Amino acid sequence: MSRSQATAFAPASVGNVGVGFDLLGHVIDGPGDTVTAFRIEEPIVRIDSIEGVIVDLPREADRNTAGRAVQALLEHAGVDFGIALRIEKGIPLGSGLGGSAASATAALVAANALLPKPLEIGALYPFALAGESVASGSAHGDNVGPQLLGGLVLATLERLIPIPVPQGLWACVVHPDHVVETRLARETLAEPYPIGTVVAQNALLAQFLAGCYRKDLDLIRAGLGDVLVEPRRASLIPGFAEVKQAALDSGALGASISGAGPSAFGWFDDRAAADAARQAMIAAFAEAGLSAEGWVSAVDAPGARLIED
Amino acid sequence: MSRSQATAFAPASVGNVGVGFDLLGHVIDGPGDTVTAFRIEEPIVRIDSIEGVIVDLPREADRNTAGRAVQALLEHAGVDFGIALRIEKGIPLGSGLGGSAASATAALVAANALLPKPLEIGALYPFALAGESVASGSAHGDNVGPQLLGGLVLATLERLIPIPVPQGLWACVVHPDHVVETRLARETLAEPYPIGTVVAQNALLAQFLAGCYRKDLDLIRAGLGDVLVEPRRASLIPGFAEVKQAALDSGALGASISGAGPSAFGWFDDRAAADAARQAMIAAFAEAGLSAEGWVSAVDAPGARLIED
Repeated sequence: MSRSQATAFAPASVGNVGVGFDLLGHVIDGPGDTVTAFRIEEPIVRIDSIEGVIVDLPREADRNTAGRAVQALLEHAGVDFGIALRIEKGIPLGSGLGGSAASATAALVAANALLPKPLEIGALYPFALAGESVASGSAHGDNVGPQLLGGLVLATLERLIPIPVPQGLWACVVHPDHVVETRLARETLAEPYPIGTVVAQNALLAQFLAGCYRKDLDLIRAGLGDVLVEPRRASLIPGFAEVKQAALDSGALGASISGAGPSAFGWFDDRAAADAARQAMIAAFAEAGLSAEGWVSAVDAPGARLIED
Repeated sequence: MSRSQATAFAPASVGNVGVGFDLLGHVIDGPGDTVTAFRIEEPIVRIDSIEGVIVDLPREADRNTAGRAVQALLEHAGVDFGIALRIEKGIPLGSGLGGSAASATAALVAANALLPKPLEIGALYPFALAGESVASGSAHGDNVGPQLLGGLVLATLERLIPIPVPQGLWACVVHPDHVVETRLARETLAEPYPIGTVVAQNALLAQFLAGCYRKDLDLIRAGLGDVLVEPRRASLIPGFAEVKQAALDSGALGASISGAGPSAFGWFDDRAAADAARQAMIAAFAEAGLSAEGWVSAVDAPGARLIED
């Protein structure tokens, strides 16, 4: 007999990681969304409650990232029962921390546990993408990918590839109390890019990935940047230049925007430096008139998991 | 007492490797340029002869890739003697096989051997870039980088990073008797690129590099492509679509244009398949009215080296 209910937690994530727009992401050990899935007789997916830091999200399952993801999973599994979801939001909306993705991921991990034959966690990826695309209008796996697998992940539309992270790397992520509309953030990317910019970003990406595989922090430092998206989105985030500089002044290997912003992140090879950056980045947002909260986490943090009630 | 003369060979190379425009390249065990450097009393660099498959190249040292590269090396070394060069071209001009780069690389390796304290081969990179930029008008190391180090190399303007190649990978490279003007090939890239294309190319590049590090041929197959440059340059090469298809039909992991063309290349996990592709690609060029010659080489072929007279 399968379980009748299960609860899962999915962590927030740093989408893009600056250098890998729509492709790279890593989780953080910080806020997250928690979803409980209940087996119900009626073969539908139903959202029973949304609580926590945001509550005004669509309740119709096919317009909700968690609901749509679980619909896709149940269609695949071909079971004769349905699932009701209770969503506890821990990640603010429009923060650039993968909040809509985390609801989908947590819901899938919980719902998967109710299946007669649960899938391996990586096999949930297509359903997570289906859920994520409800919120963003297009499928990109740079949040759901790392949320499923943990750590740093390369997420193409076809597959997830875990990228090794050198030991002892820390991320500092700071979220200001400000909303960047995803649609507006996307609009900044409409103007096409000259070949020189494309090659420069490719050079960053290649060095970053080679640095991760070679465990070469100098190479990661050389690659952890963004000449593609950050220059166009920085002005949407009050104080971003100063916040980034605060991270670099604290010793960051690199710093950029998390997801579509307004959160900012930096990578550090030293926990104390990341802690100092957290204070300095919060102070820089305060100078720009924004209150902010921040987290320090191993880059190689764990992904979504079932939690016992 | 230092040597008074030295001869070096530098192999042809596949610039861009499709997925890494201006950044990735690998050498082939096939044609190459050979340069002999003679120590002369007058503190200048002089081109004494240019022979082989092309002879109408600039003889003024600072307008010749080999001459300019050696000038830069001597300026760095601060020696009180000069160097005369005899260049034997084995790589056709405008073939997309790194011919101008190979002259610079071979000249540097030969001249370096005449220095009181020869540099390590990788340290010759900035001088090779200086030479290469005489021919192309801009510095890019995707030919001189692999020609110096051998194998597959990521070449940024600042550094060379050898990329591991899984054992047993073969390249087939076919050169048709046709010249693509470098200036024209560059002009096709002037129109800027939409973000979707940039992300698609980034996804290819990231998968290709992860595939090399993971020794995962499926991932290399997924990544070995080009949605950025090839679609714009393919029409400059008569029969390119059919030549590429011939490579794929022979089992290529991927196939694209070598450098700015017109040469085409494919990667194979089997020597016999690469040999078959060579015939099929030559036949496809013949259908388009072009005679062609081809080579099959390990991807991880050796770089430039001194040769004994």
